[in-house]
Amino acid sequence: MRSALILAGGRGERFWPLSRPGRPKQLLPLAGGKVLLTATLERLDGLVPAERRFVLTGRDLEAPVRELVGSSARVITEPVGRNTAPAAGLGALVALATGADGAMAVLPADHHVGDLGSFRADVEAAFATAEDHDRLVTFGVRPDRAETGYGYIEKGAPLDARAFDVKSFREKPDAATAAQYVQSGNFSWNSGMFFWRPRTLLDALGAHRPALLAGLRALGPAAQAWAAGDAASFDRSLDASFGALESISVDYAVMEKARNAAVIEASFDWDDLGSWTAWARHHVHDESGNVVEGFAVAAQSSGCVVLGGGERPVVVLGARDLIVVQAEGGTLVCPRDRADEVRKAIAELDARGWTSEGAAR
Amino acid sequence: MRSALILAGGRGERFWPLSRPGRPKQLLPLAGGKVLLTATLERLDGLVPAERRFVLTGRDLEAPVRELVGSSARVITEPVGRNTAPAAGLGALVALATGADGAMAVLPADHHVGDLGSFRADVEAAFATAEDHDRLVTFGVRPDRAETGYGYIEKGAPLDARAFDVKSFREKPDAATAAQYVQSGNFSWNSGMFFWRPRTLLDALGAHRPALLAGLRALGPAAQAWAAGDAASFDRSLDASFGALESISVDYAVMEKARNAAVIEASFDWDDLGSWTAWARHHVHDESGNVVEGFAVAAQSSGCVVLGGGERPVVVLGARDLIVVQAEGGTLVCPRDRADEVRKAIAELDARGWTSEGAAR
Repeated sequence: MRSALILAGGRGERFWPLSRPGRPKQLLPLAGGKVLLTATLERLDGLVPAERRFVLTGRDLEAPVRELVGSSARVITEPVGRNTAPAAGLGALVALATGADGAMAVLPADHHVGDLGSFRADVEAAFATAEDHDRLVTFGVRPDRAETGYGYIEKGAPLDARAFDVKSFREKPDAATAAQYVQSGNFSWNSGMFFWRPRTLLDALGAHRPALLAGLRALGPAAQAWAAGDAASFDRSLDASFGALESISVDYAVMEKARNAAVIEASFDWDDLGSWTAWARHHVHDESGNVVEGFAVAAQSSGCVVLGGGERPVVVLGARDLIVVQAEGGTLVCPRDRADEVRKAIAELDARGWTSEGAAR
Repeated sequence: MRSALILAGGRGERFWPLSRPGRPKQLLPLAGGKVLLTATLERLDGLVPAERRFVLTGRDLEAPVRELVGSSARVITEPVGRNTAPAAGLGALVALATGADGAMAVLPADHHVGDLGSFRADVEAAFATAEDHDRLVTFGVRPDRAETGYGYIEKGAPLDARAFDVKSFREKPDAATAAQYVQSGNFSWNSGMFFWRPRTLLDALGAHRPALLAGLRALGPAAQAWAAGDAASFDRSLDASFGALESISVDYAVMEKARNAAVIEASFDWDDLGSWTAWARHHVHDESGNVVEGFAVAAQSSGCVVLGGGERPVVVLGARDLIVVQAEGGTLVCPRDRADEVRKAIAELDARGWTSEGAAR
């Protein structure tokens, strides 16, 4: 039986003032008005049944995540975030405890995916490759620009109708190297979406990160308890030992080292929505290149991203390439090319003893 | 007895979203946190007693103006704005009806005046020149830049210790002409502040705008009624005939034509606060040239004007030379060099059927 692990623990500070503590990116309606986590779950309809979709989030986000998810998945929580390798390992244990030993999709809850039909076909192919060849499969995204914000995957020999062996993983490159990668045609972006049998992942952790696997194995009884309906026991076990696991990404812990990694080139439109600029790429632009949503106007302006939330209008007049977002947390104004630095806005508020949640002084 | 007429009928759309219909510029706390009209009245303390300060405003602004003014002046209202010549003429009639035939100061309610002591000394000098020489006196402001947004006054021969004859009034010049004016040292900006005996003004109107004077004369009984305490009768008379008066500025109607105009060079810091940029000139700048007030931050930014009103913070990050104002009416973002076009923001909202008062759609 196949399963899915939805990673929904991120903080998403880059979307301030729409994102705030307690309402991070995956809980925001950034998918054409739909909440990203909801959209992520809906994309699995027909692929993985609700009872084998595991949404992993932080204890602090449990209440809003449970409310949002309802009966469309099962929610498990980490007492503290330890990056993606412990999360994926925990997901594998939980899946096995529920009897799901077929391929598991591991999907971030906060990405943009366009073209649902292509996505589903690609997931079916990845499930098959993971099961038929006992592989650690990742979706590679064909680059359309020399992006320096993503890792890259170099493909090797064809493995089946859709998959290739992975020749190498490459860290985020500089601009010149990124341009070479794009030029070569052999590289794709590392999407952070993975497919493997739970056993295949655990074996890889044992081969490349044995201490982490040992720590995870100790949580096996907790996963069994959870599967038997004893969530309280599961939470107590994690409270006691999850924080002691090594905080490491699944890319670094296993993918970059594994000999059985495979890549499938995604045929759908993808973006990790790392910033307001990334968000804007997937929304309708006016004839002047502005993306304007909500109670907002961009007049005599070009290349601006303007979101007006709330009861008072936002007017951007005569501006170029600005991000202007008014939301419950406050109002942000910054140039588009500073979009990656939005979390600094929160730091500035913190430095003044002000809250980024939008309360009065 | 001397008197003062405070012109408080302006709309002040250039300060949206802080200014709004019903709360124009003169009612905003733009004078270092003090409301401009209040600051204008306080500057007259010791010069003109409260009972001979006449605040002229629109019927639509009567309630907030009366509340603000309290017992510090007497409020009269126009049913419709007809520019400054009918307003000044009406003020002259009202002053005479109350027995005040000494010099009258005519002062816009929405200007910046720095250095109170110098202002008061200049007003005393202007009162004396108006009375001793039967003149139409105006304050000229020594230009510190080749401003093209103001009219200029060319001074002639010295008249007394402070005043000069006016050689000519000049309309708003182009940049080259403005530079010549500044270079010559003989020109000052037309501040729009005037001093004259009521009779001197009415005589000048009779000489240069006889139809307007005739229309005003017909309001003489109304002014008498008002002085006798019958404001209702005054209002009815103005309703019937004030709107028929020619809409014309006092500069154009009399000052540019009069042979008895005089200019006193102001010794105080002055600005007509025509825009957010003008406002910023008179407020404290941080080391990066930003003016930041309220619940607001300008981080890694320079030359920005940032006002955060309300309960949610405004963060400007990595920007240059922007105006960002969050207030009850909404949020404005525009480059500093577009500050003169802020009223377009209101037009854009109107075009969408949205309100510039900040209500939800």
